[in-house]
Amino acid sequence: MANLGFVGLGVMGSRMVKRLLDAGHNVTGYNRTQSKAQWLLDAGMKWAETPAAVSRAADFIFTMVTNTEALKAVTSGPDGILAGVGPGKIYIDMSTVSPAASREIAAQVAPKGAQMLDAPVSGSVSTLEEGKLSIMVGGDRAVCERARPVLEAIGPKVTYVGGNGLAVSMKIATNLSLAVQMLAFSEGVLLAEKSGIARATAVEVLLNSVIASPMVKYRGPFVLKMPDEAWFDVNMMQKDLLLALEMGRGLDVPLPTTAVTNEMLTTARAMGFADKDFAVLFETLAKMAGLKK
Amino acid sequence: MANLGFVGLGVMGSRMVKRLLDAGHNVTGYNRTQSKAQWLLDAGMKWAETPAAVSRAADFIFTMVTNTEALKAVTSGPDGILAGVGPGKIYIDMSTVSPAASREIAAQVAPKGAQMLDAPVSGSVSTLEEGKLSIMVGGDRAVCERARPVLEAIGPKVTYVGGNGLAVSMKIATNLSLAVQMLAFSEGVLLAEKSGIARATAVEVLLNSVIASPMVKYRGPFVLKMPDEAWFDVNMMQKDLLLALEMGRGLDVPLPTTAVTNEMLTTARAMGFADKDFAVLFETLAKMAGLKK
Amino acid sequence: MANLGFVGLGVMGSRMVKRLLDAGHNVTGYNRTQSKAQWLLDAGMKWAETPAAVSRAADFIFTMVTNTEALKAVTSGPDGILAGVGPGKIYIDMSTVSPAASREIAAQVAPKGAQMLDAPVSGSVSTLEEGKLSIMVGGDRAVCERARPVLEAIGPKVTYVGGNGLAVSMKIATNLSLAVQMLAFSEGVLLAEKSGIARATAVEVLLNSVIASPMVKYRGPFVLKMPDEAWFDVNMMQKDLLLALEMGRGLDVPLPTTAVTNEMLTTARAMGFADKDFAVLFETLAKMAGLKK
Amino acid sequence: MANLGFVGLGVMGSRMVKRLLDAGHNVTGYNRTQSKAQWLLDAGMKWAETPAAVSRAADFIFTMVTNTEALKAVTSGPDGILAGVGPGKIYIDMSTVSPAASREIAAQVAPKGAQMLDAPVSGSVSTLEEGKLSIMVGGDRAVCERARPVLEAIGPKVTYVGGNGLAVSMKIATNLSLAVQMLAFSEGVLLAEKSGIARATAVEVLLNSVIASPMVKYRGPFVLKMPDEAWFDVNMMQKDLLLALEMGRGLDVPLPTTAVTNEMLTTARAMGFADKDFAVLFETLAKMAGLKK
Repeated sequence: MANLGFVGLGVMGSRMVKRLLDAGHNVTGYNRTQSKAQWLLDAGMKWAETPAAVSRAADFIFTMVTNTEALKAVTSGPDGILAGVGPGKIYIDMSTVSPAASREIAAQVAPKGAQMLDAPVSGSVSTLEEGKLSIMVGGDRAVCERARPVLEAIGPKVTYVGGNGLAVSMKIATNLSLAVQMLAFSEGVLLAEKSGIARATAVEVLLNSVIASPMVKYRGPFVLKMPDEAWFDVNMMQKDLLLALEMGRGLDVPLPTTAVTNEMLTTARAMGFADKDFAVLFETLAKMAGLKK
Repeated sequence: MANLGFVGLGVMGSRMVKRLLDAGHNVTGYNRTQSKAQWLLDAGMKWAETPAAVSRAADFIFTMVTNTEALKAVTSGPDGILAGVGPGKIYIDMSTVSPAASREIAAQVAPKGAQMLDAPVSGSVSTLEEGKLSIMVGGDRAVCERARPVLEAIGPKVTYVGGNGLAVSMKIATNLSLAVQMLAFSEGVLLAEKSGIARATAVEVLLNSVIASPMVKYRGPFVLKMPDEAWFDVNMMQKDLLLALEMGRGLDVPLPTTAVTNEMLTTARAMGFADKDFAVLFETLAKMAGLKK
Repeated sequence: MANLGFVGLGVMGSRMVKRLLDAGHNVTGYNRTQSKAQWLLDAGMKWAETPAAVSRAADFIFTMVTNTEALKAVTSGPDGILAGVGPGKIYIDMSTVSPAASREIAAQVAPKGAQMLDAPVSGSVSTLEEGKLSIMVGGDRAVCERARPVLEAIGPKVTYVGGNGLAVSMKIATNLSLAVQMLAFSEGVLLAEKSGIARATAVEVLLNSVIASPMVKYRGPFVLKMPDEAWFDVNMMQKDLLLALEMGRGLDVPLPTTAVTNEMLTTARAMGFADKDFAVLFETLAKMAGLKK
Repeated sequence: MANLGFVGLGVMGSRMVKRLLDAGHNVTGYNRTQSKAQWLLDAGMKWAETPAAVSRAADFIFTMVTNTEALKAVTSGPDGILAGVGPGKIYIDMSTVSPAASREIAAQVAPKGAQMLDAPVSGSVSTLEEGKLSIMVGGDRAVCERARPVLEAIGPKVTYVGGNGLAVSMKIATNLSLAVQMLAFSEGVLLAEKSGIARATAVEVLLNSVIASPMVKYRGPFVLKMPDEAWFDVNMMQKDLLLALEMGRGLDVPLPTTAVTNEMLTTARAMGFADKDFAVLFETLAKMAGLKK
């Protein structure tokens, strides 16, 4: 069994650690607020006082944080992961961050004799808990293969995509469709509803049609009843669209549906929906269409 | 076995007739160009000289034509279907047309003692041939039940949606997502490709992700190799988006992603792609992004 | 002085007749509701019972109506203008209608030995009253020259644009910018206001900047105080954008800003602003941005 | 006469210095490449080796640089302007940069006993040379009044907008309309042209219409013949739109026309037009509409 380290024990990160512990690995963890990690300590995880201490203790170090800024915070400085990384270690970032930032960190890891992979995941908390998470991997292919057994303990489908940063690029390229599909779905439901079809009927028909992606199947029912807790909120979704738009500008790719959907996410935030699941795009459009809640 | 009539023996209509004949029904057919129907005549279909003659000969009369204008052409006038419709007959239009036009025709059918259903289908030629076509039905519920056995000979999944015109409304509300999803998918593929990921890899990852609707699974591979024949071309797709936009204006529903995608279909036509499968949205965006074919 | 006829005595049409009377012309007029024309009858206008009677009485016949349908209503049938048109007469439509419809009517006028011009105007009621209206003319150039003296009595700037229908095409191509400029102006005002700049200051700065078209100068102050009566309401503005979008599809011209602005006009209508001046785009966007009125 | 300092002697900055010299002021200047400043040295400007040296020598220090990064480069560090700023001095930045960055620098200037104004300009090189430039000022009002005489030597119209950063906010809120108006104008010209109206005629009519802002009057003729040198290129224009979009997200203001136009600027860059005047939006749309150059 391997010596693993994990920094970032939020909703996703903590459940990944649980799976790694369940698979028999030693895990040393760190989180900004220790209290949230108590259940993992109870389950056998060791605690470290800093990200640097995590990386000193482990052969494979994982991070799962909110955004590029948070990643820089846990990797840099005297207490950061980079300070503890050394020869032979593999550092695996599972966050969705700017591909350029990911490549920059990879370039700082290499001179220390270690290597970095970007390994963002596709799927939500429930996918993770069901053991069905997909993981995309960017970096050196041989390093990916060395990490594969550990990664498979988190999720069964590990796909090598290409060099450093390319897995997060692929993740971002995927995620823009989440928001766009949700908005287009909402346009359809509202057209049907204002035509005189019951909203529940419209949703049912759409969920049985050729447009029903897994995302649409998960979130379609949310237009009938929003969940109490967001699976992926408007702020998070917009963060990903902004990464896509930033990539589009850097690479000269026009992104018409992404740009339009992004403005609707801004509208959602202006209407007070920042912390709601991004399926609230439906309610945002419904308000624009003059429907009371 | 029922006496059926069928007007409009194009790609979809002719295969529907074949299924009806295979199920043991008597079918009388009409098409603008008779030669295309020869294989159906060989298979046992009877020929009628006008749409009116079809409706006189049959208890259930079907139409499957290109657009609202074509529907008006085959239903009105002394040779039209309405001229031959009488008490007890059921007229079923399977085309995707303006909901308002559909309701107008239903209102002309009723005084003759007959009744109309709008019954657009969801799925393509291959879905039809595999016997998996979904059919939505608008009109009187009891009439829908009377027609159900015949409709099920065409496709197994018959869903009653509501009053006259509502099934085409639902169809249009569904179809806008086809084009929008294809464009968003294309944005993702191009972002990935310009990042340095092979196009085939990008497509593979996306087809295994939560955005992979059946539509995306069908058409995703088209960005690697366009089919020789369009399944559903740019002109047809834009016709459906225009119906959606017309509905949106009439019902006060803003349709941001539909409107933007519609302009991209116009761009596709301007680039000479009018007759290509609408998956050519990818190539349209690729040209805008400076990629040579 | 010429014998003139005028059908459509609304806000614009009636003031045009007044200017023609003031210039010493004989004018025979018709309006759907006669009562609105009393002040013109008092000023010397003669009354006719039908559009056909107007065209029989006059050498130059004018129409100024709301849309394509209204134009067809006053030109066709036994009481329509075409029924009274004959050799040597000139029929001048000043409405903003579909270029195709305009050309169709021109084609019906020609066989009668008469000729048609489309002559839409640029400017509002106040421009008209100040005698500063611009008129664009489509049709035969020699016919335009024959009509010029009469047209100049309405507005001083008469520009020949090209063949039949091209003046309305030009008008529509102009008008799309009205709505788009208003929406972009609104985006700027809201950005400034939410930054902490007083709305009045923001408007003042913008009205003194390089983006201050005459339209922006007219309507910019409306974001501080909407006028009691619309100069050009949301319904009318959207009618013109729809004509533009219809032309764009027919001619293969993508219209990205027009399409997006059109959806915002739909949003305005859904919010209950259909009868407000289209400057209400500001308030529409302000509501989307979470601002209370 | 005042002791002035000027950092950033590009196309705009150098001409500003010339006007300040002509007005009798002492000016000490600095530019990354000294050779470009030779004509100003010949005209009496003194040279300093670093931005810090400029600010030590002057009572009013100006900067006019390309973007936020360039501004940080000339203000920070031991050679930066802040290093030379002291009690009683006024530092005036005339660049278009992020309002947040502007406020940050103002906050670093204050503790040194000096004060900062943001003073972006509205207008191009020719407006400047004609002595008609407008200047918006953000910062303390009394400081603005102290600087007014010097600013008026650059341009006659100096408008106080509000606190630090608000003048650049106002500038950005203005500039988004430049690009949007140009794109809407292009849509109109293409509609007219594909209708059969000569492009030159279409431009002429539009330049005489209510949509003819000073910007449209300057750049409208560019669709007939692009200038050899860009007045304001696609890269610069997109920089300003990105600042607007960044503000919109921070302040919760949806920017539908800005977002769509920004994607068209990306398309322009992808087509190879990055260094062309942003009027090249016309050619970008024309290519999308299938027109050969």
